[in-house]
Amino acid sequence: MKKNVLIIGAGGVAQVVAHKCAQNNDVLGDIHIASRTFSKCEAIIESVHAKDAMKVPGTLAAHEVDAMDTPAVAALIRETNVQIVINVGSAFVNMTVLDACIETGVAYIDTAIHEEQDKICETPPWYANYEWKKRDLCAQKGVTAILGAGFDPGVVNAFARFAIDEFMDEVTSIDIVDINAGSHGKYFATNFDPEINFREFTGTVYSWQNGAWQENAMFEVGRDWDLPVVGTQRAYMSGHDEVHSLSANYPQADVRFWMGFGEHYINVFTVLQNLGLLSEQPVKLADGGEVVPLKVVKACLPDPSSLAPDYTGKTCIGDLVKGTRNGEEVEVFVYNVADHEVAYAEVGSQGISYTAGVPPVAAAMLVASGEWDAKTMRNVEELDPKPFFTILDRIGLPTRVRDADGDRAWNA
Amino acid sequence: MKKNVLIIGAGGVAQVVAHKCAQNNDVLGDIHIASRTFSKCEAIIESVHAKDAMKVPGTLAAHEVDAMDTPAVAALIRETNVQIVINVGSAFVNMTVLDACIETGVAYIDTAIHEEQDKICETPPWYANYEWKKRDLCAQKGVTAILGAGFDPGVVNAFARFAIDEFMDEVTSIDIVDINAGSHGKYFATNFDPEINFREFTGTVYSWQNGAWQENAMFEVGRDWDLPVVGTQRAYMSGHDEVHSLSANYPQADVRFWMGFGEHYINVFTVLQNLGLLSEQPVKLADGGEVVPLKVVKACLPDPSSLAPDYTGKTCIGDLVKGTRNGEEVEVFVYNVADHEVAYAEVGSQGISYTAGVPPVAAAMLVASGEWDAKTMRNVEELDPKPFFTILDRIGLPTRVRDADGDRAWNA
Repeated sequence: MKKNVLIIGAGGVAQVVAHKCAQNNDVLGDIHIASRTFSKCEAIIESVHAKDAMKVPGTLAAHEVDAMDTPAVAALIRETNVQIVINVGSAFVNMTVLDACIETGVAYIDTAIHEEQDKICETPPWYANYEWKKRDLCAQKGVTAILGAGFDPGVVNAFARFAIDEFMDEVTSIDIVDINAGSHGKYFATNFDPEINFREFTGTVYSWQNGAWQENAMFEVGRDWDLPVVGTQRAYMSGHDEVHSLSANYPQADVRFWMGFGEHYINVFTVLQNLGLLSEQPVKLADGGEVVPLKVVKACLPDPSSLAPDYTGKTCIGDLVKGTRNGEEVEVFVYNVADHEVAYAEVGSQGISYTAGVPPVAAAMLVASGEWDAKTMRNVEELDPKPFFTILDRIGLPTRVRDADGDRAWNA
Repeated sequence: MKKNVLIIGAGGVAQVVAHKCAQNNDVLGDIHIASRTFSKCEAIIESVHAKDAMKVPGTLAAHEVDAMDTPAVAALIRETNVQIVINVGSAFVNMTVLDACIETGVAYIDTAIHEEQDKICETPPWYANYEWKKRDLCAQKGVTAILGAGFDPGVVNAFARFAIDEFMDEVTSIDIVDINAGSHGKYFATNFDPEINFREFTGTVYSWQNGAWQENAMFEVGRDWDLPVVGTQRAYMSGHDEVHSLSANYPQADVRFWMGFGEHYINVFTVLQNLGLLSEQPVKLADGGEVVPLKVVKACLPDPSSLAPDYTGKTCIGDLVKGTRNGEEVEVFVYNVADHEVAYAEVGSQGISYTAGVPPVAAAMLVASGEWDAKTMRNVEELDPKPFFTILDRIGLPTRVRDADGDRAWNA
């Protein structure tokens, strides 16, 4: 039953994935890490050994690969004899890595939607632009492909499925709320690569309401949320991957995503945006040279991975799901709270990377056990959430429920 | 008595200087414009002819010169047979142009202090770092050099001298207040080259108080000023050239400079400054390239000269001078109000360039008439202010006085 894993990518999330695979290498098997920069893979391996994270003796090896090169990824899959690929590389490599998995017949897991470098905020539903076009091929070839298996998308999709299955006959709305109430102590920083991070907020905000796609501008719609542990927090309707699959699976429900932002973040973002400094189009300098402003902003901001040692506070990410049971209105909030300092102590990463990196390892373990080995392409809400929660409880991201009956573990 | 003029520079201020020289070429003589970019000189000449600005038929010619190259500037002075150089090029060329004037024995007029590219906010008094080192040489050779003859420095130095001479026995304080209450209609823009403009606010703020240099941070000390025409405006203590010469000439007085800023300007400036985007030190991009962030910000901001057509509103720049007469405390505000739309209609420039470009032409006319032909180096407060005001009244920048006796023309 043990299955060998290839991790694509060597950033902050990949580090968490590697630690968690190592901690569970009695369920998984050999662990391989590949990225364009060999030394970054080696650094992750060093950090895994520094924490003595390997549960049982086994293989943990670094490789260099260009993830945009399908034949090269396929060759690496064959050479390393892996059965599961966890893709936590840049958002630009999803399709080339997926193609390599289909070609070699191994399972594919990712945590975010595919993006093309030169396109921002494509038309909804986003998954239909790239990933879902390969769904029939996956089914035909019996290849398991689990899309968006990070926290959001990922665990929040499972939260929605669980809330609907357990607590209601009909669902009317799913509001996903993502609050980072932590503090990195810097004037300003992004938690992921600024180039990817800002792309989420520079285009149209799509939500699914009243059975149709609705469009808003970023920071146009804000709402205060009263949440467990982190208290009342303001969040703004934003575009996000999971709105696009959940609305396809639950078209009768309104599906919205809300991201928490402080006034300071919004102010800095607004200034940069209005000055054109978040642009991906090159500008001409006085000396005739050309440069992309966003790349200069990125160079001036702190490296997201440098934030981890001083990060304090907690995240709260959950789904407020509303519907009816026996004709009565019901609502339930399914959520997780994670802690930046605890994450750093365990795997050397901040809480945002931790919440993104732990779930795909749980998914891999469920593919290894057969429970999620679907032999086709699936978004997370199309899979049984309970074994997922059971593993997540054990490996660091416990699921809780708050409703009229109180606040408790999901399986209490 | 007529004297030929060479204008160094071809930016927004040079355009105003050219128009005003043309309008007064019965007092001045041939007009030559030289900059590194020949086409910019030609564009200015075209704009002068478009307004039919030449008072009498005469020479108006464009030249290409590198103002950092003293022998080249000296050769151009000889070739064009000019007797006065008005230097409104970048702040980096003062010393090389001054050297060419000393070498050829012609009069030199500038509007701002010398700066070295790689130094920001040098130690006070700033003039002593560069210009004043040539004072003895100018006297020895009988060369007239008038430093800082724009509006501020320049007219405001004459305002101070006038207030002290006319209204008091002893001066106790000189507060120069510079308010641009105009609106350019853009999200954000600087009125001069952003590289020069931001340099004024990124270093230590020096003021002369209690007989010594005092240091503050930018935006640390703010005060509301009740002013003629533009009303109550908030201004912040800033470093500025004229504080350095006025404090040497009036060491018994407190000398401060106040620049008006709206909250929006301060917010944008603060964000850019805190992110490191105003830095002149290159940063390394992800692709290995290097770029100076400030140059990228400059490329993203509107070209200052593009603001003129839509600029509305007024500027108010003046000196609040306090002292004693016959043992009684007195105070007087000497000031000018200029209008952006009027300036654009007359010379095709916005009001900020207009206030900077008109005064050096008045100074040149006084050199031509002999009244300011000092045969040595002078800051403006060391020259008789009355003939200066008389010309400024006539050519577009009238001087007014407000005190306990009311608001009136300086010579009413």
